[in-house]
Amino acid sequence: MTEKTIDFQTDPTKYRHWRVEYAGDVANLYMDVDETAGLFDGYELKLNSYDLGVDIELADIVQRMRFEHPEVKVVVMRSAKDKVFCAGANIRMLGGASHAHKVNFCKFTNETRNTFEAAEEDSGQKYICAVKGACAGGGYELALACNYIMLTDDGSSAVALPEVPLLAVLPGTGGLTRVTDKRKVRRDRADIFCSIEEGVKGKRAKEWDLVDEVVPNAKFDEIVDQRAKEFAAASQKPTGAGVKLEPLQRSIAADGSLNYTLVEVVLDRAKGRATVTLNGPDAPAPASPEALHALGDQSYLLRLARELDDAILHLRLNEREVGLLIFRSQGDPEGVLAHEKLLLDNQDHWLAREILAYWKRVLKRIDVTSRSMAALVEHGSCFAGVLAEVLWAVDRTYMMEGEFEGDNRPTAAIRMSPSNFGPFPMGNDLTRLQTRFLGAPEQAEELKSKQGETIEAKAADALGLVTYIYDDIDWEDEIRIFMEERASFSPDALTGMEANLRFAGPETMETRIFGRLTAWQNWIFNRPNATGEDGALQRYGTGIRGDYNNERV
Amino acid sequence: MTEKTIDFQTDPTKYRHWRVEYAGDVANLYMDVDETAGLFDGYELKLNSYDLGVDIELADIVQRMRFEHPEVKVVVMRSAKDKVFCAGANIRMLGGASHAHKVNFCKFTNETRNTFEAAEEDSGQKYICAVKGACAGGGYELALACNYIMLTDDGSSAVALPEVPLLAVLPGTGGLTRVTDKRKVRRDRADIFCSIEEGVKGKRAKEWDLVDEVVPNAKFDEIVDQRAKEFAAASQKPTGAGVKLEPLQRSIAADGSLNYTLVEVVLDRAKGRATVTLNGPDAPAPASPEALHALGDQSYLLRLARELDDAILHLRLNEREVGLLIFRSQGDPEGVLAHEKLLLDNQDHWLAREILAYWKRVLKRIDVTSRSMAALVEHGSCFAGVLAEVLWAVDRTYMMEGEFEGDNRPTAAIRMSPSNFGPFPMGNDLTRLQTRFLGAPEQAEELKSKQGETIEAKAADALGLVTYIYDDIDWEDEIRIFMEERASFSPDALTGMEANLRFAGPETMETRIFGRLTAWQNWIFNRPNATGEDGALQRYGTGIRGDYNNERV
Repeated sequence: MTEKTIDFQTDPTKYRHWRVEYAGDVANLYMDVDETAGLFDGYELKLNSYDLGVDIELADIVQRMRFEHPEVKVVVMRSAKDKVFCAGANIRMLGGASHAHKVNFCKFTNETRNTFEAAEEDSGQKYICAVKGACAGGGYELALACNYIMLTDDGSSAVALPEVPLLAVLPGTGGLTRVTDKRKVRRDRADIFCSIEEGVKGKRAKEWDLVDEVVPNAKFDEIVDQRAKEFAAASQKPTGAGVKLEPLQRSIAADGSLNYTLVEVVLDRAKGRATVTLNGPDAPAPASPEALHALGDQSYLLRLARELDDAILHLRLNEREVGLLIFRSQGDPEGVLAHEKLLLDNQDHWLAREILAYWKRVLKRIDVTSRSMAALVEHGSCFAGVLAEVLWAVDRTYMMEGEFEGDNRPTAAIRMSPSNFGPFPMGNDLTRLQTRFLGAPEQAEELKSKQGETIEAKAADALGLVTYIYDDIDWEDEIRIFMEERASFSPDALTGMEANLRFAGPETMETRIFGRLTAWQNWIFNRPNATGEDGALQRYGTGIRGDYNNERV
Repeated sequence: MTEKTIDFQTDPTKYRHWRVEYAGDVANLYMDVDETAGLFDGYELKLNSYDLGVDIELADIVQRMRFEHPEVKVVVMRSAKDKVFCAGANIRMLGGASHAHKVNFCKFTNETRNTFEAAEEDSGQKYICAVKGACAGGGYELALACNYIMLTDDGSSAVALPEVPLLAVLPGTGGLTRVTDKRKVRRDRADIFCSIEEGVKGKRAKEWDLVDEVVPNAKFDEIVDQRAKEFAAASQKPTGAGVKLEPLQRSIAADGSLNYTLVEVVLDRAKGRATVTLNGPDAPAPASPEALHALGDQSYLLRLARELDDAILHLRLNEREVGLLIFRSQGDPEGVLAHEKLLLDNQDHWLAREILAYWKRVLKRIDVTSRSMAALVEHGSCFAGVLAEVLWAVDRTYMMEGEFEGDNRPTAAIRMSPSNFGPFPMGNDLTRLQTRFLGAPEQAEELKSKQGETIEAKAADALGLVTYIYDDIDWEDEIRIFMEERASFSPDALTGMEANLRFAGPETMETRIFGRLTAWQNWIFNRPNATGEDGALQRYGTGIRGDYNNERV
């Protein structure tokens, strides 16, 4: 299977796999996968099975639902196919894909599911999953991420997680975790459920808490519509006219470097390194939420988030040997703070709220990116407020101290704001500063009094906000040594180390999915019993079971 | 490297690697690994590096400290070698061992560390680690599991986790988790610490919270002794004369079946299955704690715990193709309840307390055993109180319902007691019943009123205490079908599934170590960058770094 460059940008005119019907405050979302439109050659997307391309469209829909259709309070996810809701991730695709592609594919699908799952809490947009037909594996994981699951009682429609018996892998898109921790299914029942290829249907599905409601088949559509209306009526979601998300302005150079309007990514493939520069505002902050709205998708923080999000995804999937991401910024920190203040002060306005919620997602996307990451706080930088979160999302932060010869830019400084104390929690539900100061909570608390201050290197170091500060003499050498050292380590060991060091403190369903479930799935993806020549993934569809080495670990 | 049968039974007359000096309420524990006494051929245990054999001795010491030396309030762990505290797990051993051995080795060492770490809370036995010389990798992980780490400031002694830069694997015995969650080291410092081969010494080790105290070298021994005395003086530990742990009575048949005095293990290697029978008491409960003490290591619940513990460890390491453990019991449930009542009623007596604490450990050992597990509640069984915990430690429980032709044993029943509501929490700090009823906490609460009742099949099913109940007609077939089905699944997928389903609810350091950290380490152990021909573990000691594929996942 030849892999090719993957573009995460799409729009409704290009969809091949999904269809949305907007009807006031309810949207009906139909999964209707085009068998012949797989992202790569070598497989057909039968039975509403999906690959990354299908999921890129879904992510686009979920995002546009938030920005272009703020009037939508309930989304009903359905299948447009007879007899099947969704058969899950395409097995031939999984069988043929590289390990790195499989892992990145799972991560992106997980992020998309987290996004629509959180839409209810973040935006008052509730997802109902209306299941008719077989709903298996990744299909049921789609349902599990919805806020309410309805299953028709037609004697055959069932929900199932058949991965273990059928494929010798895990339901790897949050399935096991949502079964135990979201739906809180009794553990022996979960064990049985995950062992039954054909799944569970009808009343038992409700009794075992696998779905929220089982509905007589003859009345299914009617009752689904009724629930949608009820939920919509109960929603307090603020609405307004939507904002169109136009295609991003992006150019990709031959060496892989990327240019957007506010984000620049300079690639050094030979050294396995990408430098991501976030630029400060190119226009003053709008004076009111109405003025913000008038800017459409062009307001500073929305545009920056979209560009940064796209850049991260692009690097993850298309530049897999780039093991180190260096974040820097340049621009006016006061401008950044002015732009974010408008959002923070107007969280009752749907658009302000959506832009903040989007930043929460983008910052989380950085948190779980399996690349070593560092930030450089240079002279002229604008790590202020929400942008300063990047400093604590990365593994290390280096800061310039004092005058640098021939450098007339404003002295490097960090500026904290209310953004650093609540609106952008990590997956562990703590702020990045709380996580950073887990061993010294009083220090995290004390930082609140420093909001608005211009914190230069020595003070930043004393407050624990940065890892190292270096002056003109040491700066270049130290950064170079760090980057070279990092490039010399095993990427697998770094992935494991970073996954363990980044999320101290409490665990949540989200951290369990990315930390525990993903790690086990990655292990299994490397085991001959799953992916070897005689493993279950390779043999799928041949009618012959995998030939297993029965040794337990 | 040829692996051979591993015996977890040892005693001080056989030690090759450790030495203990008892001095009243302080014990000095010296690590003094015999290079030539590795468990397998093919490597030398240089620089106080360890293999499973070294750890089996340590586990034995920790256990005897609890039972034979209840007067000990503080244990000081030291090295008997000059210049090195401990270099961690032996790399050549790791390089030569099978994947399954590596994983099981790490699990056992983790359990041993958890055991001495918990001794302070469980028994008032506090471990001080007195570090002089290089303390690297697994060596520092030993220290991290102690309750108090003291480091000499001699200009060279340092603590280090050099696994990532040096070996392309993780510090896999809890190191990363204890750095972030026990010592709460700031995350960028943790990142640096885990990247520095030579580690961190002196004041910085204290400043970064890597150790609790840095002591001038000239005064090191003196101040360590002083701390030991202080901690001992502050301890409220109840003491008394110890109880000698005599060798277990165990016979192993040619087919691998095991016989102890109270535990029988019948092996069916061809079918990959072991049936573990726990027998009820062979003597009435002692009338008082003094009578319990007079029985030495022969009292029912202590003997049963020791035998069960040994059986589980034996099966894990020596019968790796046995993928399914079936637990059953036979005997007098009232007798079980009488024996445990004496312990529960006398928790201020050191021995009663220790036996309960030991059961907590044994039950946790079952929880994290990577085998499919089921329990059969048959007629004549004695799943009562602490033994009933086994029913909710396993993945599924089957129970006989009604009369079985020709079976005159007492009707199958479950009996709950205070044991099921507190004293034996799982790694997630919840009881097994709380974990089981995570989605219905009121149901777990209601069960309290059923203590002491004889709960037969229908009632047990209605209360959610068992998975399935079957009558005479279905019993045999259903159990057979389950066992055959289980044996047909991929052991890796089952391992991953069980690791995710067994620990719903809150996470703790312990569940993170076994769930998240272990999974990442297992994955890395399967990657060519670590264990391939050109990987870091194979190349260790050649002076050539691993040749890494730089693709990130």
